[in-house]
Amino acid sequence: MTPAALPAELAVLNLGIATFLPGLTDANTRTVAAAWSPPARGNAAVGWAAARLAADPRVDSANAEALARLTSSRPVLIGTAPASTLIPTLADRVLLHAGPPLSWNRAAGPVRGAFIGAVLLEGWAETPLAAEAALASGEVHFEPCHHHGAVAPMAGVISPSMPLWIVEDPVTGRRAFSNYNEGLGKVLRFGAYSSEVLERLRWMGSGLFGAIQAALADLGGIELRPLMARALQMGDELHNRNAAATGLLTRLLAPALARIGGGEAARVLEFIGANDHFFLNLSMAACKLAADAGRGVEGSTLCTAMARNGTDFGIQISGLDGQWFTSPAPVVDGLFFGGYGPRDAAPDLGDSAITETAGLGGLSLAAAPAIVQFVGGTSALALDTTRRMAAICLGSHPEYTIPALDFRGVPAGIDARKVVDLNRAPVINTGIAHREAGVGQIGAGITAAPLGCFEGAVAALATDRYGAAL
Amino acid sequence: MTPAALPAELAVLNLGIATFLPGLTDANTRTVAAAWSPPARGNAAVGWAAARLAADPRVDSANAEALARLTSSRPVLIGTAPASTLIPTLADRVLLHAGPPLSWNRAAGPVRGAFIGAVLLEGWAETPLAAEAALASGEVHFEPCHHHGAVAPMAGVISPSMPLWIVEDPVTGRRAFSNYNEGLGKVLRFGAYSSEVLERLRWMGSGLFGAIQAALADLGGIELRPLMARALQMGDELHNRNAAATGLLTRLLAPALARIGGGEAARVLEFIGANDHFFLNLSMAACKLAADAGRGVEGSTLCTAMARNGTDFGIQISGLDGQWFTSPAPVVDGLFFGGYGPRDAAPDLGDSAITETAGLGGLSLAAAPAIVQFVGGTSALALDTTRRMAAICLGSHPEYTIPALDFRGVPAGIDARKVVDLNRAPVINTGIAHREAGVGQIGAGITAAPLGCFEGAVAALATDRYGAAL
Repeated sequence: MTPAALPAELAVLNLGIATFLPGLTDANTRTVAAAWSPPARGNAAVGWAAARLAADPRVDSANAEALARLTSSRPVLIGTAPASTLIPTLADRVLLHAGPPLSWNRAAGPVRGAFIGAVLLEGWAETPLAAEAALASGEVHFEPCHHHGAVAPMAGVISPSMPLWIVEDPVTGRRAFSNYNEGLGKVLRFGAYSSEVLERLRWMGSGLFGAIQAALADLGGIELRPLMARALQMGDELHNRNAAATGLLTRLLAPALARIGGGEAARVLEFIGANDHFFLNLSMAACKLAADAGRGVEGSTLCTAMARNGTDFGIQISGLDGQWFTSPAPVVDGLFFGGYGPRDAAPDLGDSAITETAGLGGLSLAAAPAIVQFVGGTSALALDTTRRMAAICLGSHPEYTIPALDFRGVPAGIDARKVVDLNRAPVINTGIAHREAGVGQIGAGITAAPLGCFEGAVAALATDRYGAAL
Repeated sequence: MTPAALPAELAVLNLGIATFLPGLTDANTRTVAAAWSPPARGNAAVGWAAARLAADPRVDSANAEALARLTSSRPVLIGTAPASTLIPTLADRVLLHAGPPLSWNRAAGPVRGAFIGAVLLEGWAETPLAAEAALASGEVHFEPCHHHGAVAPMAGVISPSMPLWIVEDPVTGRRAFSNYNEGLGKVLRFGAYSSEVLERLRWMGSGLFGAIQAALADLGGIELRPLMARALQMGDELHNRNAAATGLLTRLLAPALARIGGGEAARVLEFIGANDHFFLNLSMAACKLAADAGRGVEGSTLCTAMARNGTDFGIQISGLDGQWFTSPAPVVDGLFFGGYGPRDAAPDLGDSAITETAGLGGLSLAAAPAIVQFVGGTSALALDTTRRMAAICLGSHPEYTIPALDFRGVPAGIDARKVVDLNRAPVINTGIAHREAGVGQIGAGITAAPLGCFEGAVAALATDRYGAAL
């Protein structure tokens, strides 16, 4: 609050701690209590680092450049191919997973379950126990999706035979990948690996893959930016709600699938038609492409990744490209399916927070009031959340807009400096996995990124720029 | 405003006319000017009729019954068939049209154009001039769609060979019909009848009809109520925006069409995929079914139809079933396509105001802020419009809800008494046709029903119940 904004008759403005208020009130002094807390939650060194970066005009220029790159990204779905042909590393018994790097010992239940399922799917082991042994011994390796231009929801496990979406920016030639969405319930990404789960994955790698490959070859590329812009006007925030985007994609794919015809094309359309989240992975790949475009601008505090592996929550910033800053992944509160509660939940999980990194999901909650109602909130809370998120962002998106805010652009480009200065963490919409391997999804809710990741990134960038003596 | 709601310090409350205000202000008297105008725009007899009906508890019971019937309607799309097999009257060189009854001499340009096109389509004449002669001479008759359980948008012309949607309530067995939507631009319903228009209609009666018939036979019925409820959560108000509903319908139809396969199924999906209004006619049929369910309750002031023929705007009320109360159709202001303006526009046109009659369209503007932006308004105006419409309705719909109003039900059941008492006309979203035959659509906008229709209905019902001495 600037002094100019204070009411003329104000006597005392109290910032943060309320200790002083009763005395003033007793003395009949007019007071206003402002919600405020010291930057970096009172850590003076980190607070100072954020202030120094905030006062640095070269950081402002770097952020303007990084934001312009992020918001000008033009994702086009150009095709689909097996992961092995797109990410050669995978040939050497390597799996990908969501979030920052992880060891088997620290892996959460649903991630272990998804790894086991992928090993069985690839035929690298015959039984879950043998699969577990291969993973624990290091016979099967794993690396983050983010290290290979990919993103995947929840456990985020990608194995060589899985087909990936290929999203490309025709101007820069940059690419991003994501896997296909399996639907809800007992699915690999929530840690389930029963025969039903593996059978669905086999069909996704054969029948579904073949049909989508043929349809995309028929249609040529599909521009995702206008499709996503439309979906935001139809109640999607493109993280936890993708119903409209899935419908818009279906309207494009269906004629090509009908030309193929027959039972397999019909099964594909039924599969897509029954899964409101089918578009999620495409939204994630499009957001990955946008966030990657913002990477590597010297001095920029733009957040270029937020991702969770069920153990750690990690972020990256543009000015320190490739470095992860992690904190323990929080437990998500939300709406649980019958019989489950927070005690059953795995900590926050998945690369899907890439949507928030690009300004969608929790940052665009105002576009999807249905999501807050889901967790007991009101449409006013949805509007307020997006307004609050705008305060930690560098700008707004020129084409992704929100009808309920009179077509204001979604808040885009999370600025780590502002997160630390305001102690205001990005809001994230997400699914909730059971903490044990093999169970699956047990709910969905709204959470926030840990402030510690942003504090670590800000301190590291300040040290990098201004020296350790900071 | 009740006295209890007045601020304690209030000195003078001024209702309506502002003449008294300056004197009071000069005398330093505190005043509040309330927006108010005398019921029935000052017509004492009609205002008295509305007051008498408002004080009659039997009218309240009748309205409760009529509203319950309207909101409990369960529309199911059960099939499709040529109009000639569903409406035998048509065999005798009869066409249907939108709105209340009409004579050729009084017919507006776009309605004449659509009649001419339909006569050419049916082969009842070889040239537009010959078609016009057949229509003017009475060789070809025409009757309102509403008189045959049907509704159709804009000119609303239905001829024997056109396929109709069949929507049925499985509980009551009641049915409603509508034609297929042709898309935008040069189309029959906006008065165009070029060879391109007729060729499209021929394909709609053959290829499109065949594919949809086969798909519906494959799928069985499609429940429209849950589909429409979902679309309201995706930015549709189901009159001028049907993008989400069209997508949801496509997701249901596409697998069945793919099973048919081949070029025709693909063409059908491309046709539907390119037309965001494809669902409109189904929304109208569903709303017709709901409004018809509310008909014929003795003493009820529930509005059961609002329809325009480009010359007259007509309404019906439940307690005087089948009687039209008309006023001149207003000119619609809105957003015009390049080069056109209000002077080029035909007066308000079409049966599509059946959606408002059932609580959708303009009454549900809060669900579709994109529509007000289209005509220069804000999202706050959209919310306010729905709140204002709630004041002229008998209740709200239990399943059609609006996310931006925290899932409050849409205002349902327009009460003619309240319209007259408040001088507040139902808001209607609509397309705008060129006033001349053969041109087509030139814009879209927001208008309101004429108050005169409601005043006429209220006066007639009061006379019917309490005698002419009123």
